[in-house]
Amino acid sequence: MKFSLKEIKEIYKPKLIPIIWRDDSNTLSILDQSLLPFQKVFIDLKDAESTALAIKNMQVRGAPAIGITAAYGMILSLTSKRPSTLQDAIKELSRAKQILDSARPTAVNLIWATSRMLKLAETYVENGNAKNVNELIQLLKSEAKKIFDEEYEAELQMGLYGLEKINDNDTILTQCNAGGLATGTGLGTALAPVKLAHALGINVSVIAPETRPWLQGSRLTVYELLEEGIKVTLITDTAVGLVMYKGMVNSVMVGADRILSDGHVFNKIGTFKEAVIAHELGIPFYVLAPTSSFDLKSNVNDVKIEERDPNEVRTIRGIPITLENVNVYNPVFDVTPPKYITAIITEKGIIYPPFSENVKKIVNK
Amino acid sequence: MKFSLKEIKEIYKPKLIPIIWRDDSNTLSILDQSLLPFQKVFIDLKDAESTALAIKNMQVRGAPAIGITAAYGMILSLTSKRPSTLQDAIKELSRAKQILDSARPTAVNLIWATSRMLKLAETYVENGNAKNVNELIQLLKSEAKKIFDEEYEAELQMGLYGLEKINDNDTILTQCNAGGLATGTGLGTALAPVKLAHALGINVSVIAPETRPWLQGSRLTVYELLEEGIKVTLITDTAVGLVMYKGMVNSVMVGADRILSDGHVFNKIGTFKEAVIAHELGIPFYVLAPTSSFDLKSNVNDVKIEERDPNEVRTIRGIPITLENVNVYNPVFDVTPPKYITAIITEKGIIYPPFSENVKKIVNK
Repeated sequence: MKFSLKEIKEIYKPKLIPIIWRDDSNTLSILDQSLLPFQKVFIDLKDAESTALAIKNMQVRGAPAIGITAAYGMILSLTSKRPSTLQDAIKELSRAKQILDSARPTAVNLIWATSRMLKLAETYVENGNAKNVNELIQLLKSEAKKIFDEEYEAELQMGLYGLEKINDNDTILTQCNAGGLATGTGLGTALAPVKLAHALGINVSVIAPETRPWLQGSRLTVYELLEEGIKVTLITDTAVGLVMYKGMVNSVMVGADRILSDGHVFNKIGTFKEAVIAHELGIPFYVLAPTSSFDLKSNVNDVKIEERDPNEVRTIRGIPITLENVNVYNPVFDVTPPKYITAIITEKGIIYPPFSENVKKIVNK
Repeated sequence: MKFSLKEIKEIYKPKLIPIIWRDDSNTLSILDQSLLPFQKVFIDLKDAESTALAIKNMQVRGAPAIGITAAYGMILSLTSKRPSTLQDAIKELSRAKQILDSARPTAVNLIWATSRMLKLAETYVENGNAKNVNELIQLLKSEAKKIFDEEYEAELQMGLYGLEKINDNDTILTQCNAGGLATGTGLGTALAPVKLAHALGINVSVIAPETRPWLQGSRLTVYELLEEGIKVTLITDTAVGLVMYKGMVNSVMVGADRILSDGHVFNKIGTFKEAVIAHELGIPFYVLAPTSSFDLKSNVNDVKIEERDPNEVRTIRGIPITLENVNVYNPVFDVTPPKYITAIITEKGIIYPPFSENVKKIVNK
């Protein structure tokens, strides 16, 4: 069974889209992920300031979701302030960009999205495409929708390529949340093939490790899959090895934060251990990410692994679980060397080893 | 540097002994592990019933610690009830054994300890070694102390053998709590070499994974090592791979719940993943356990892996972290095949591969 993008769009509809633009009221509605899975609350954003705050407070998280939110945040700066001249509009957009960019300074997608919006606005003004502020707002709205649609279509394509790796009755082990909550579209990267398979009537289930310290597995992945009616089993991070050893896993599918030209994959802490065990036991290990996640310039040793607040490990949902001052090492990502990766699935196709040859071929296609 | 048992007993003294017998008042004082690391409270047990309850409520945990506690629980049944005849004493001991054994029915050490005490009492009475109940109590006290001392000396011996595998400035990765809290002696199995090394002035530190779902790492291992002044770093279970990948670990030392004659090791969930990654990265992986933990009869497929309450994964310290009814798989142990194990360190010596030949040689020594 092969499907075109158009066909699969008809077959699969996301059950829960966490970012919704309401054009009649110039409002961005985002699902507050910090309250999941206990409360399903959408918050309405009407200006750049509140959008920046929602990003900062992790009410919206996940690289692509932050990018989409920030793009709409730029528009909200104009719809809330209504500058009278195009010059004032550009000034307002520059100011909004600063506020949004500083909400999470290390989020690459954030700066990428605000830059794309500002640059485009400047071009529209220079070229005279926008005659007044209202026209500029309309053009920017199309662009933000385009960012969303591009992301969604890339995920559908990834999902279609990933489908080739799923058989009836398969169980997929994942890690963290590489789903539609992280991307903002409701589909996701690593979870896209599973969702499309389910929509096509293929029997597929997921094992989700809880993914300490943030528990994206127990809080988000489990929630998102149950919303779509997909079977999911939650495990502790300690049980990842046993489920593979016992033959409960047909393949591993994870997302990626950054992929290098030689195939090194930076992803949520815990990914590396799944890759090594899968490799050792002969279980296929797939990484799913759009080509925008590739960094073809950096060397593995250039990439700094971000460390976060030790209190994330010392507490769970604010409750202390260990001594107050115990020494903690709390890295956010780990790095998986190419030898453990069966294939990298992108919207442009599936990349097989040798990655140092094949990554460039597909990414630059 | 080689040390005799006598020499090392002089050099190392446990800082925190969690099971203390107070002979003047016939009281067993146990450190309530369910309150650690937030409160350091000793509870005084004066009869078999309260001892059984403390075992049931996990105020004392760890196979050897439960064994020692149960042995004293048998004595407490006599000191609290003071039966007048030897026949009544044996009846009382049988009754106490039933109460204690049912506190945690799957704990092998518990039944082993109560059986040893009852059998000995019967022998003493039959042979006339005990002329009255007071004499019987005295003889049983010696036996309980012997159980404690045997355990402690086995751990010291394991520690001495393990010392051969530790170099100055080493960092040891462990799993769960295989320390003096688990064994009741204050020393431990997997942590014994680290503690002896530290006492000998060798610079050694430990990386402790938190070990979900029960968090024995963050609650107990961290606490126990800090009490002894040993450097320890807490990590999430997801970070186990990265610390090995980054070269932060010189060797892995873990305990064992059961070891088979071919070298298969059953231990706390999460042990298998550490073993596979260590093997892959060329890091030595050591299992430390007394010869009493060997099961030379069972085959790997005969051993059932215990599963516990799903709510242990759905909550942390009573706080929900996921949806109430999400499907959970919560195994307590995993199994590590012999190919990933560098050596098994026992009180009788170090067992190297091939284990199917060498395990029997050392265990039956």
